[in-house]
Amino acid sequence: MISENFKIQESELIQTIHSTAQKFGAHGVWGDDPTETGVCRLALTDLDRQIKDWFIEETKSLGCTIKVDNVGNIFATFPGKHNDHLATGIGSHLDTQPTGGRYDGIYGVLSGLQVLRTLKSNGYIPNFPITLVNWCNEEGARFPMSMMASSVWAGLTTKEDVYKLQDVFDSSITVKDELKRIGYLGEVECSHRFNPLKCHFEIHIEQGPILEALDKKIGVVTGAQAFSWIEVTFEGTAQHTGTTPLEFRQDALLAASQVIWKLNEMAKTHGGLATVGKISIGPDVVNVIPEKVSFVIDFRHCDDNVHKAMESEVFDIIEQASKNALGNGRPLKYSTNLLIHSPASHFDKKMLGIIKDSASSIVGDTLTHEIVSGAGHDSCNTNHIVPTAMIFVPSKDGISHNPKEYTKPEEILIGFKVLLETILRYDADRLSELQPN
Amino acid sequence: MISENFKIQESELIQTIHSTAQKFGAHGVWGDDPTETGVCRLALTDLDRQIKDWFIEETKSLGCTIKVDNVGNIFATFPGKHNDHLATGIGSHLDTQPTGGRYDGIYGVLSGLQVLRTLKSNGYIPNFPITLVNWCNEEGARFPMSMMASSVWAGLTTKEDVYKLQDVFDSSITVKDELKRIGYLGEVECSHRFNPLKCHFEIHIEQGPILEALDKKIGVVTGAQAFSWIEVTFEGTAQHTGTTPLEFRQDALLAASQVIWKLNEMAKTHGGLATVGKISIGPDVVNVIPEKVSFVIDFRHCDDNVHKAMESEVFDIIEQASKNALGNGRPLKYSTNLLIHSPASHFDKKMLGIIKDSASSIVGDTLTHEIVSGAGHDSCNTNHIVPTAMIFVPSKDGISHNPKEYTKPEEILIGFKVLLETILRYDADRLSELQPN
Repeated sequence: MISENFKIQESELIQTIHSTAQKFGAHGVWGDDPTETGVCRLALTDLDRQIKDWFIEETKSLGCTIKVDNVGNIFATFPGKHNDHLATGIGSHLDTQPTGGRYDGIYGVLSGLQVLRTLKSNGYIPNFPITLVNWCNEEGARFPMSMMASSVWAGLTTKEDVYKLQDVFDSSITVKDELKRIGYLGEVECSHRFNPLKCHFEIHIEQGPILEALDKKIGVVTGAQAFSWIEVTFEGTAQHTGTTPLEFRQDALLAASQVIWKLNEMAKTHGGLATVGKISIGPDVVNVIPEKVSFVIDFRHCDDNVHKAMESEVFDIIEQASKNALGNGRPLKYSTNLLIHSPASHFDKKMLGIIKDSASSIVGDTLTHEIVSGAGHDSCNTNHIVPTAMIFVPSKDGISHNPKEYTKPEEILIGFKVLLETILRYDADRLSELQPN
Repeated sequence: MISENFKIQESELIQTIHSTAQKFGAHGVWGDDPTETGVCRLALTDLDRQIKDWFIEETKSLGCTIKVDNVGNIFATFPGKHNDHLATGIGSHLDTQPTGGRYDGIYGVLSGLQVLRTLKSNGYIPNFPITLVNWCNEEGARFPMSMMASSVWAGLTTKEDVYKLQDVFDSSITVKDELKRIGYLGEVECSHRFNPLKCHFEIHIEQGPILEALDKKIGVVTGAQAFSWIEVTFEGTAQHTGTTPLEFRQDALLAASQVIWKLNEMAKTHGGLATVGKISIGPDVVNVIPEKVSFVIDFRHCDDNVHKAMESEVFDIIEQASKNALGNGRPLKYSTNLLIHSPASHFDKKMLGIIKDSASSIVGDTLTHEIVSGAGHDSCNTNHIVPTAMIFVPSKDGISHNPKEYTKPEEILIGFKVLLETILRYDADRLSELQPN
């Protein structure tokens, strides 16, 4: 274990998590302790400016050089011995959901910071530079595009397109306006071409219940699921619930309920996920048969081929429900609209091997578990461009995007130690780059 | 056929329907013709006052005496030969839903008016007095109690309770305020004890699709279904749709969808009806598993015993869904709240026989059909106190509580003729009351 000779300030990371939460957006009290609140720190607000300023100050004090790109990403580079080589990347985000917790994203950036602090305080110079990235607007809560600025960096969308995005709370305000206003419309082009990295590591809370349920401490994240969102609208006829025989009905909610039920069966069959989280109904009156029901289907699988097969079954299920709701009514009209399709991510095998070995050396094999990320992360974007891998730590009760989001301090520390060991091992492994061919 | 020697003004009724709709609340254009609108005439508004004033003026001009009771019902009594006997009652209502049509309720009162006009214009004096009733606030749209004033008349609720009802659009206004303001807080006690009737006939549009589908012109309404409304709330856990395996979920919408689906099967098995028309969901976000879903189950059957058996199955279905949504998640909390239970009505066999014979004499047996009312009517209340029966005419596409509510002019006329013949036959039948025992 490379890091075993390092002196580690064991409580510094958790203290930084709590002190920054307190200073920059504490919101949503859920317990008596001052640390028992969530955080509301929406992208490109004054609070986001304050945490960005703080991030730059902290990393500069460690000797980092700073680059701010023109979509608000901050790259803080800790120098190594061979600074003419690309930097090893560590990144995540410091923005939150409106009802966010203290850990989602934040834990990743502050763990990266803690790695740099540990190198610095131990007087250790890595072989290669290390760049810690604070990606801008991962949550997409205020400006509605998840993983916004990492998408631009990876060339998956353009800066012009994201500049136009409007504040969901005030449509007169755009991303570009706010980047300018808070002083984070940087001069570096937001692109992996102009501002490249060697690779991207990210540590994150799981946001799901699996590690906790299996009593594991470290998730080696092999990739992220493919997912799609399909909006469905059924249109039937509003009729009196007391006067319309079942066989005369076009009940849009009955059709929707058949879909919701069948989707769950289908997802189980494929070992994937399917959910309807959003639904609206009209006219929404007790004694009127629902005329119009719209809902969004979210379905996911870690294998793109299975996800594709699921998609086809989703459309069959909708079609069947529309034709004859449960064999006991009249056909309904329907329409569908694919809102999002995101293919599966498969992270870099070599990096995953290093993470796994690092975790084994710290908590042992029995507490280490391979896992697929259910949610999207900035790493899913960087993975299109550079070798990428992620580490998960447990989330209490699988709760996230909620003030109650919680990971135990000892789990926070274990995750950091695995990240530190991983970065050191990766840095050592990169020495082969210096060999002449 | 008693009425065959009567001279009938064949277009007068439909003209009255259209002219009163035009003058008193035309609303909701659905076609090019001036008659192609609905009506919005909420109970106890100025428009309701105007139609009440008009009703009194019209019936007075026919020689009727008027009683207004202290819950706003108007009794217009056309004299017969034996005015010391109770009057034969005909009634319905002139108020509408906010998005009402031209026929619901209105057709019943104006057909009764047309019966009186026809007796008058033919110089015919019935054996017994005939009272035409305009029941106040049948719809319960503005002041939320359906069949409000007929409930008080029948002693099913008290005038004090209905006086307190608040305007759903402005809670500072009560029924009593508005009765006073529009001048319809009458002096007669609203009670079958103080202001009795011999019986109650009501003609109404079907508000369902059955007569039209079977190509029938007259429905002999044998009663009304029992119905109940049960509010159900499922409480699960809001979790990320991408990170929470199916077996860890407490998906409140999945449980609700199972209930909606099972209810439909259950209703079919029993030959009854079950519907969910109203549902709300939280937090209603695409990638969050629904935490809380509330909905109202409306279920009906014409037989009280079967309805009771259905109720027991409804609770079983809810319980099953809560325990384990589709065998593929974790148990959810739930609560239920019985909002309404209304037992089945069974109308008077002798009166139904007279209606059936009258219909046969006018359109023949093949166009006459026995039917059970799916909706509630003032007749369901009078049926608790006096012999009661109803006549239905077809509703185009079964549509009601909608501006598009429509019954063909020729069907309007047929219905009126059956009512006229029924009233004359019943009046003749009542001569037996004059025989000494």
